[in-house]
Amino acid sequence: MTLMDDGLEILTEDECQELLASGRMGRVAISIGALPAVLPVSYVLVDGEILFETGEGAKLRAALDRAVIAFEVDSFTADHASGWSVLAVGVARVVTDPGVVAQTKERNLRPFGSHEGSHVVAIRPDFLSGRRFLTRRSA
Amino acid sequence: MTLMDDGLEILTEDECQELLASGRMGRVAISIGALPAVLPVSYVLVDGEILFETGEGAKLRAALDRAVIAFEVDSFTADHASGWSVLAVGVARVVTDPGVVAQTKERNLRPFGSHEGSHVVAIRPDFLSGRRFLTRRSA
Repeated sequence: MTLMDDGLEILTEDECQELLASGRMGRVAISIGALPAVLPVSYVLVDGEILFETGEGAKLRAALDRAVIAFEVDSFTADHASGWSVLAVGVARVVTDPGVVAQTKERNLRPFGSHEGSHVVAIRPDFLSGRRFLTRRSA
Repeated sequence: MTLMDDGLEILTEDECQELLASGRMGRVAISIGALPAVLPVSYVLVDGEILFETGEGAKLRAALDRAVIAFEVDSFTADHASGWSVLAVGVARVVTDPGVVAQTKERNLRPFGSHEGSHVVAIRPDFLSGRRFLTRRSA
């Protein structure tokens, strides 16, 4: 790990992978029409790929277009005194392998929205980075 | 409020404003070079504007460029069974008014990073939308 000024610690790729694997809810940045958007998704990590379900809509379209998507997962303590954030960027694609689709639907929380009829989108991170935020008090 | 299929409830603008005002940590989608990125920020809401602090870097550059930025804040229950997400999109700008800068630095948590020397960026939402996610159990 590399300590930066301002209470920022740059995470190693291993730490990023570990934190990515520990999360359940992330957010994807996509475009809806000409406008940028950030939308929450529940996800699972399988073989280093971020997998989430989506209905018809902007997230599916991004995957059909094989758009480059930013995916972020973070966690902060209740008092927001410390936390971490991991950012993954990669090309999105629609998963067609029935085994991966089934595995995703079985493991993915998807607390809202039905698994039935949902599409599975995968992002294989080409770029992975993460930061841990320390409180000024402990920095 | 409008009930949608799939356990999604579309929030009214008033509900979005209220939830936006209740949050402390949000995320902004910006570009770093040619790549999209999502980065967490601690923020305050003043007169309907989202205000956050930043050092030199991609977030400041976006504001100097008056880029259209997506800002998202969400909250989920610990079991991820329900939650909400509010998305605001607007032009970013660097705040130069000393009164607003001082008010932001006083109210903003900024748990990581110093207030000293930070720049204040404002987003006035041109577009505001929100969704509440209900569990399948209660849907």
